[in-house]
Amino acid sequence: MGGTGSEAALSSAMRTAIGAAEGVRGTTSPNPPVGCVVLDAAGAVAGIGATRPPGGPHAEVVALREAGERARGGTAVVTLEPCSHTGRTPPCTDALLAAGVARVVHAVSDPMPVAAGGADILRAAGVEVHSGLLAEEAESGPLRAWLHFARTGRPHVTWKYAATLDGRSAAADGTSKWISSPEARAEVHELRRRMDAVVAGTGTVLADDPQLTARTPEGGLHEHQPLRVVVGNRPVPAGARVLDDTAETLLLPASDPDTVLAELAGRGAVDVLLEGGPVLAGAFAAAGRIDRVLGYIAPALLGSGRAALGDAGVGSISQAFRLHVEQVTMVGPDVRVSAVPVAQE
Amino acid sequence: MGGTGSEAALSSAMRTAIGAAEGVRGTTSPNPPVGCVVLDAAGAVAGIGATRPPGGPHAEVVALREAGERARGGTAVVTLEPCSHTGRTPPCTDALLAAGVARVVHAVSDPMPVAAGGADILRAAGVEVHSGLLAEEAESGPLRAWLHFARTGRPHVTWKYAATLDGRSAAADGTSKWISSPEARAEVHELRRRMDAVVAGTGTVLADDPQLTARTPEGGLHEHQPLRVVVGNRPVPAGARVLDDTAETLLLPASDPDTVLAELAGRGAVDVLLEGGPVLAGAFAAAGRIDRVLGYIAPALLGSGRAALGDAGVGSISQAFRLHVEQVTMVGPDVRVSAVPVAQE
Repeated sequence: MGGTGSEAALSSAMRTAIGAAEGVRGTTSPNPPVGCVVLDAAGAVAGIGATRPPGGPHAEVVALREAGERARGGTAVVTLEPCSHTGRTPPCTDALLAAGVARVVHAVSDPMPVAAGGADILRAAGVEVHSGLLAEEAESGPLRAWLHFARTGRPHVTWKYAATLDGRSAAADGTSKWISSPEARAEVHELRRRMDAVVAGTGTVLADDPQLTARTPEGGLHEHQPLRVVVGNRPVPAGARVLDDTAETLLLPASDPDTVLAELAGRGAVDVLLEGGPVLAGAFAAAGRIDRVLGYIAPALLGSGRAALGDAGVGSISQAFRLHVEQVTMVGPDVRVSAVPVAQE
Repeated sequence: MGGTGSEAALSSAMRTAIGAAEGVRGTTSPNPPVGCVVLDAAGAVAGIGATRPPGGPHAEVVALREAGERARGGTAVVTLEPCSHTGRTPPCTDALLAAGVARVVHAVSDPMPVAAGGADILRAAGVEVHSGLLAEEAESGPLRAWLHFARTGRPHVTWKYAATLDGRSAAADGTSKWISSPEARAEVHELRRRMDAVVAGTGTVLADDPQLTARTPEGGLHEHQPLRVVVGNRPVPAGARVLDDTAETLLLPASDPDTVLAELAGRGAVDVLLEGGPVLAGAFAAAGRIDRVLGYIAPALLGSGRAALGDAGVGSISQAFRLHVEQVTMVGPDVRVSAVPVAQE
């Protein structure tokens, strides 16, 4: 790439933009969590922005406002191709042109027909446009769920479970506190705060009475709480913690995954955490509606008790749902495995 | 340390000695697999040796023979304190003194009362003796099983299993070929060739008809084959592959772990691989006779089918067998977890 700034400086700016986007995950749906860094004509960082909640400005506008006159002749580094359509806010292409930006570098091209064309509009106006910088990092990072939603019309589902090495999520007497470590549980709270919705079955609510909130290590509530969704036909007792007033809760008397996902999509949910239990997770697996598996495997053995995953319609080894391991990490004493369906690779 | 050779050179020699010991694991029991490097007076490697099969020379003698006259005034770097007793072979201390070695550096002190005192005898004869160099690596590596045997009188048991992320070792219809990858299966063959015995239950033999041999990637037999042990009271059909003539097989009509281990100890087995199935593994877990867990976790989901571990007498989460993860490694597409009981740390 020519112009101001080396490839390394642009990559550094894109990493900053990806980080900014990651920071607003869970607060932007149905809009994508985007990050933007504006470099001035000399290549110095003049503004950093991330998508504000729906109705608020997009990442480019936030970054351009911070940059002010320094944007003129500079470069906008964005995780997603700037939008060219008027939604609740004016097109970002207008804002970039008005600011006099000379170059736009984005990671991922916009797959949504209604918004595509941003790059073309910018080019037609004389702006230099490059796409693809750190595209994989943006796609597998903050944009993963939104891109999935854009392509399929369905929210992205992460099935999170905690189990022993032998695949048990509770002991024979039903006790499960705690299988995973405090470190793993803290990480799940961090995960929830980045989600639009957290889904559990009535069986889990009746058995474990989870609150399904996103809490800080000190026990306080995070600013953003995901929608709590209880799925299934068994009645939820009035005193259940999931019905308290710490966050919104949706009771869905359905258990078919596509019914559940259509309802959540209608509510603008893009990124969904499926927290069990085994029956519900089995139904999602059988329907091919698990887009990522996040397992917290505790180094322990039980030998009996509730299995992490219930019947998923698999009869023979050849029908097993095969995944690809993205990442294996130690979280405190536990092993965290992140895996995605092989077909999705 | 004074004398010839820097600390780094001694560490390097000890690593070579540990590697040499690792190479003879499975062929030395009931003697320990030991490695020895002899450095000449200038600090150059003059000889490398590892324990020969029972009745053959110990590691020190092998290395001293290679070093010849160059051993005089030199250093013997050994993974285990040299023995001072006459068994089937003369004491290694005699050989070291006869060779005129000026210094002995060993990793681990000998815990066996009958053989202890090697360091004292050497010191009394004017040899400089240091212990503890890379002791942890030797203890957790080639000497692990033998040290366990020396301390407890029981063979060291590694429970190896292959399962899906949700803890299943077979599908609902009993099929299990293949849950783990070719890479993982090849590693298990490498593991078996380092073992004294491989143990499976009659249930597994009837269900899967395993051969339980150690084969090369090309399908040939490794030179060393572990004793194949079939445990349980159900009759094994005459045509079972485990009864073929590729290796020795012991049919043990017992299922109590301590009975099994006592029988194996009596046959000189120190390092034992428990390959299942779930009922036998559950019995070993319940008896506290699993010393290491080696799980090959395939990134796949089944949702039903045979659990990797059967009933182990655990009723409540507080009774779970807690382990400590030693190592997590990718083996092809699979996740290998090595863990040891928390109490053994």
